[in-house]
Amino acid sequence: MTRNLLYAQSGGVTAVINASAAGVIATARQASGEIGQVLAARNGILGVLRETLVDTAGLSVSDLARLRATPGGAFGSCRFDLDPAEQNPAQYDRLFAVLAAHDVGYFLYNGGNGSMETCRQIQAAADARSYPLRVVGVPKTVDNDIVLTDCCPGFGSAAKYLATSIREVGLDLDAMTTGSGRAFVLEVMGRNAGWLAAACALAAEDDDAAPHLILLPEVLFDEAAFLEKVTAVVERLGSCAIVVAEGIRGQDGQILSMQDRNQKGYIQLGGAGEVIAERIHACLGYKVHFALADYLQRSARHIASKTDTAQAFGVGKAAVRRALGGGSGVVGIERLSDTPYLWRTTLQTFDDVANLERQLPPEFITPDGFGVTDAFRRWCRPLIAGEDWPPFRDGLPDYLRLQLPLVPARLPPYVP
Amino acid sequence: MTRNLLYAQSGGVTAVINASAAGVIATARQASGEIGQVLAARNGILGVLRETLVDTAGLSVSDLARLRATPGGAFGSCRFDLDPAEQNPAQYDRLFAVLAAHDVGYFLYNGGNGSMETCRQIQAAADARSYPLRVVGVPKTVDNDIVLTDCCPGFGSAAKYLATSIREVGLDLDAMTTGSGRAFVLEVMGRNAGWLAAACALAAEDDDAAPHLILLPEVLFDEAAFLEKVTAVVERLGSCAIVVAEGIRGQDGQILSMQDRNQKGYIQLGGAGEVIAERIHACLGYKVHFALADYLQRSARHIASKTDTAQAFGVGKAAVRRALGGGSGVVGIERLSDTPYLWRTTLQTFDDVANLERQLPPEFITPDGFGVTDAFRRWCRPLIAGEDWPPFRDGLPDYLRLQLPLVPARLPPYVP
Repeated sequence: MTRNLLYAQSGGVTAVINASAAGVIATARQASGEIGQVLAARNGILGVLRETLVDTAGLSVSDLARLRATPGGAFGSCRFDLDPAEQNPAQYDRLFAVLAAHDVGYFLYNGGNGSMETCRQIQAAADARSYPLRVVGVPKTVDNDIVLTDCCPGFGSAAKYLATSIREVGLDLDAMTTGSGRAFVLEVMGRNAGWLAAACALAAEDDDAAPHLILLPEVLFDEAAFLEKVTAVVERLGSCAIVVAEGIRGQDGQILSMQDRNQKGYIQLGGAGEVIAERIHACLGYKVHFALADYLQRSARHIASKTDTAQAFGVGKAAVRRALGGGSGVVGIERLSDTPYLWRTTLQTFDDVANLERQLPPEFITPDGFGVTDAFRRWCRPLIAGEDWPPFRDGLPDYLRLQLPLVPARLPPYVP
Repeated sequence: MTRNLLYAQSGGVTAVINASAAGVIATARQASGEIGQVLAARNGILGVLRETLVDTAGLSVSDLARLRATPGGAFGSCRFDLDPAEQNPAQYDRLFAVLAAHDVGYFLYNGGNGSMETCRQIQAAADARSYPLRVVGVPKTVDNDIVLTDCCPGFGSAAKYLATSIREVGLDLDAMTTGSGRAFVLEVMGRNAGWLAAACALAAEDDDAAPHLILLPEVLFDEAAFLEKVTAVVERLGSCAIVVAEGIRGQDGQILSMQDRNQKGYIQLGGAGEVIAERIHACLGYKVHFALADYLQRSARHIASKTDTAQAFGVGKAAVRRALGGGSGVVGIERLSDTPYLWRTTLQTFDDVANLERQLPPEFITPDGFGVTDAFRRWCRPLIAGEDWPPFRDGLPDYLRLQLPLVPARLPPYVP
């Protein structure tokens, strides 16, 4: 007897989350003896509640290949947490009514730490209601902050994009080092964990190459020590390239950009890079440029890492296989060796993963706090390895813009 | 009798200026009957004055291939204008002393509008002094604002990078359009001319795709009309992606970012994107993200346009040939047809090119001022066509970091 599989995407999207979707769909299609329809919800768990579902049977084999090479979340994502089951049983009644109406026996949720809590809640509610459901979390985040996995799909490609960018900017800076000192600041994502900022270090082939300094959220910002470092680099090389994680904190533990940002009424966290750029200019008088990668870094599929796309596809595939095998939990990646980089998938319990956050460990940060260690480089290098160019047409990546019709609703509209 | 050739780079560097250098060097090597040494000055005309020259004979054939695929200015660039000859004859005495000391008979200067004025000054001074010298300008600028050429090497690659980026961000935005309205602002280069901002329009396959609005320096910013447009897009699609040229001006003709920027004591022109982001948030209440590409856009060699690298190499080659043929002036590119894109090089006089600036013509801008016409797209599309990936190693572009020793000085140090 077959049952249907429901897949959904959650949280900030990445350059390769659709590769996970492709892995799920392709693997589920191969299991036609156990899985009937392969459905996807629009906009994550919200789409389940709203019963806005699509049937991925509408995707041809060539669509699937393009989906694998398309950034963003093709099925739509959301930032929405379920209420605790005991506080809002009606929400769960609706959720399970939708699952039952479409005979969903497998629910695969592709997201980060918060989404794994959603998975945990749904599996627990299904068990409590004796609704037969296997829930499996498919990891995804550019922030690389999920615990109990070697890395998170999405991170490697964003890291490759950022390291490439700072290497290119470094050559630009090198060309212009006449006259007074110059500095360049690149702000990258990372509220509490500095994995992306740290990955930029891979761009530097030696001490003279960019980036020269990295500011991590794991290290409280020491302005005096920082300015001294910048001065030393500029005196030696004429310019200094600095990578700043958006979430760096001052000595008081406050996010550096916060005050500035609140005055502007902004919602975006960013701003740390600009604060740093202004401090350098004000204190040292250098000419300063700054760049803010923002969404560009998490959607740069054009320079995706081959390791990353393979792992993104692989965790989607593993999630289907685990669910079919009766498993429930979060797919992880286990590193078997650095060189060659070998890995396999694992399954972690929701309790061990949900809502936790992995920061850079101390052994990955240099004693002065402004750089990363060789141990970090060894860990990170394989994750950006290999190129996986998307197809191009007329000079631009030929991405898939998915237009699947909604499956007819079987229930009355959702009233939260 | 052979004479030596001197090449130098000037102004803001690009992803492909080194391809022009490779074109110059490879072509000059083939003319060993007429050209002796192929020298390059460090940091442009400053390097000539300072007699900091390198001999490109130190570059192997494989170095040259890597140079062609390396962004930044491998020989160093400068922002330095010569004084008028009548005001500072000593400066020209020094300049020609260096040229004579190294028997330079050909001077090729790779730069933008200002650099072509430098070329004009040097050719005029050489003629006045009866110093036998052929000066040829090799065009280069991401801003695409040199007159009498179909386009400028450097532009196509920056355009390809930006159009790719906004297409990718558009997919990211599409995935997240639940809840209240959202906007995304990308600030790109362009002080007086909006070519790069306009090129982002190539990313949109239809009216629903990003970018939805483009703010050009050629059109005075009308805030009320703009906010109305943004509202209409968000009501239709849930989000709106906007590209802003750094140099947009308000109704009073003042650069929009200026006041804000002056308060901060900044030197970088940027800030227009942030001003726009803040206005959208303040007036419409949308969640707004903004990105600032800054140097990333002019050094993104990893996604260079094949047309652009071919033209960059081609103008370098043409400059050598024109100089050998006794020509003097600025190399231009003439379009012979759109499809297939066919072009050839021309030679323009310095007087016709130097210090002029080409803006977007009215027929390339839509009547409402917030977009570009099909005529623009026809013009721009071939310039971003084709991929020319650099070599990769360990997951990152394997760029050349040039380390050539200085040619021993034959003159006393320069005292300005």
